[in-house]
Amino acid sequence: MSERAARASLTRLFEPQDAVGLALVAALGPEEALAVIVSGSDPDPRHEQSVHEVLTEHGGSTSWKGLGTAFARWRPRVPSLAPERDLMVLQRLGGGFLIPSDEYWPEQLEDLGLQSPLGLWYRGAPSLLPGAAHAVAVVGSRDSTAYGATVSADIAHGLARRGFTVVSGGAYGIDAHAHRAALAGGDPESGRAPTVAFMAGGLDRFYPSGNDELLRTVARRGLVLAEVPPGAAPTRYRFLQRNRMIAAFAGATVVVEARWRSGALNTAHHAEALGRAVAAVPGSVLSANSAGCHRLLRDGGAVLVTEVQEVLELLGGHPASNDGVRARNDTAIQDGLTLEDLVLLDALPLRTPVPPEKLCVVAGLGLLAVRAGLGRLQVLGLAESVGALWRRGPTRDSA
Amino acid sequence: MSERAARASLTRLFEPQDAVGLALVAALGPEEALAVIVSGSDPDPRHEQSVHEVLTEHGGSTSWKGLGTAFARWRPRVPSLAPERDLMVLQRLGGGFLIPSDEYWPEQLEDLGLQSPLGLWYRGAPSLLPGAAHAVAVVGSRDSTAYGATVSADIAHGLARRGFTVVSGGAYGIDAHAHRAALAGGDPESGRAPTVAFMAGGLDRFYPSGNDELLRTVARRGLVLAEVPPGAAPTRYRFLQRNRMIAAFAGATVVVEARWRSGALNTAHHAEALGRAVAAVPGSVLSANSAGCHRLLRDGGAVLVTEVQEVLELLGGHPASNDGVRARNDTAIQDGLTLEDLVLLDALPLRTPVPPEKLCVVAGLGLLAVRAGLGRLQVLGLAESVGALWRRGPTRDSA
Repeated sequence: MSERAARASLTRLFEPQDAVGLALVAALGPEEALAVIVSGSDPDPRHEQSVHEVLTEHGGSTSWKGLGTAFARWRPRVPSLAPERDLMVLQRLGGGFLIPSDEYWPEQLEDLGLQSPLGLWYRGAPSLLPGAAHAVAVVGSRDSTAYGATVSADIAHGLARRGFTVVSGGAYGIDAHAHRAALAGGDPESGRAPTVAFMAGGLDRFYPSGNDELLRTVARRGLVLAEVPPGAAPTRYRFLQRNRMIAAFAGATVVVEARWRSGALNTAHHAEALGRAVAAVPGSVLSANSAGCHRLLRDGGAVLVTEVQEVLELLGGHPASNDGVRARNDTAIQDGLTLEDLVLLDALPLRTPVPPEKLCVVAGLGLLAVRAGLGRLQVLGLAESVGALWRRGPTRDSA
Repeated sequence: MSERAARASLTRLFEPQDAVGLALVAALGPEEALAVIVSGSDPDPRHEQSVHEVLTEHGGSTSWKGLGTAFARWRPRVPSLAPERDLMVLQRLGGGFLIPSDEYWPEQLEDLGLQSPLGLWYRGAPSLLPGAAHAVAVVGSRDSTAYGATVSADIAHGLARRGFTVVSGGAYGIDAHAHRAALAGGDPESGRAPTVAFMAGGLDRFYPSGNDELLRTVARRGLVLAEVPPGAAPTRYRFLQRNRMIAAFAGATVVVEARWRSGALNTAHHAEALGRAVAAVPGSVLSANSAGCHRLLRDGGAVLVTEVQEVLELLGGHPASNDGVRARNDTAIQDGLTLEDLVLLDALPLRTPVPPEKLCVVAGLGLLAVRAGLGRLQVLGLAESVGALWRRGPTRDSA
């Protein structure tokens, strides 16, 4: 069985953030971890020892009751394992299952340590996955007000227009406004939009059903992700676990509207614990929907933001392309390019500028793709226009 | 000429915060300073020396051009000096002129150092002047919104009800809402209300004229103050100087609504520079009237507040009586009592409780005054009720 199939299976056996299960995977690797669980035999004392060591290392050994207890929890689910079927379900829905060794795996999730997901079920284009420095979580109340709708849309649209990815939870209210505005701010030419929805349940059926059409659009133009396999119900526990992924995925989390007790605050606290920037939008002190934001601002953990430019400051001024395409790696500009853009960059002459048509021939790309790519490379200083002609830009050192 | 008449005269000769003039007073005392100015003779080199030393000490010597220049500035005003007439004008208006040696002088103004006013023209009862720990400045836009009106009234009324003094500038908008709500929260029995207005012009004529009725009420039930003499116009310069007094007088300054550039921010910056607590009320990010508040909150100088309880936290939890009567001194509870309450405290038996009627006899006070005083003493832990009877409370150490 492949690592992918093993990890896919484990997402069905374990609840998100099952510390013992994740420690078992850390100790034995996903294939062997799965093998010892499905074998039906008693726990190996050496495995017990290894798992306990991993848990101790991560400060999670207090709840340790031995592998036997964990096996008893997981084994009833073994008969329902069908990783190939699950993968096929997602493929038919235009998706798949991403694992940490994949090119597009969002490495920022590793900041969760042992709580990093085993893999990510997805619908959409994983090539749209940005690094944390290009992703902003826009979250808030389900029962948002007109004010919250306006502000979340303003911020999300502004982020999308500037090439930053808007991450949210696909819920009613602020989440939906954020996804919708990011879709509106996407690239009309490619149809792509920089928005990612993290779901608490399986991706075969979207929750809440009232957002089904919106989430299908996000899946088509952006990306929808979940750590639980198709068929998994969006339980309350899974909602809370999902929040940690939103927080880890984004370089900054903005709470637009939140009541005094709100799931959005949970996401904000996760972000804070991970050392990510947390921001909150102020509002009327007479509105219960802003009480949670004011609480965050008073507690000192959040920065007050009033517009998209102030949100971007939180990301530390990382450059972004001027459309919906990510710049994946933050340390080296070239590594942040898509394969297509790298091909285009290689095709650009160092000195004598050429027309885009010539680049189509050299790079083997369509004219629209070349034009879009040149725009992105120009923003990064990698391409330079001379009238209607193009050549390499001033940022050449590692080109 | 008395010190009071000398200081009153100097408020007519100097613009507020005339560094050279204030240095001259610091060096020679008000009577001699006035004498050398009105004498008409050339500056004495020893005086030049002393003034320069004071200015250097206070870091204000850069603008030093010699006493001759200053004399030339002041002397044209000498013929208009008529301190006795000015004092009579104020007396006829139910006021007077307070100087630093007076019992009720607000000592917190001394934190302004050389910029502390020479004296304060007043209308109202100076016995209402609180210490900084019992005064909160509530300031903001002239063109306030309905939101600003509601919030400033909520906060000011809440402060007044708890015995804290609401300080403001008597302007349209937030200032007026704050004064009005403090009047509404005052003590209906005594007619007193804990609100103080600092004016930029002379107190013979209130500015703006549209607030004349309001300010007359503040003068009757609270207190109106100015450092400029009757007849002085409220110039733009004097408005800005006035702000420093509001900031110094109050233990905390709350900006309720302010545009990006607003006089209220000037007051807030003065407060910050003096080490006073500064707070701002958040609002809609779509409202220009909250932009200044959000600016203060983002700059890190202000604490976000949403209600009166959070404002009180800024004062460091100093106790206040539950009506409009000040507790003047912050270090010893007893010193904070009015003479009336001290008399009542002395009348209270240590052990065997007595009815209020008995206290009327012992203390020589009316029944209403005794009842009100008992309430105040009870809040401070100095009186204790046993059914309908009263005795000393648990806070007895220095009673």
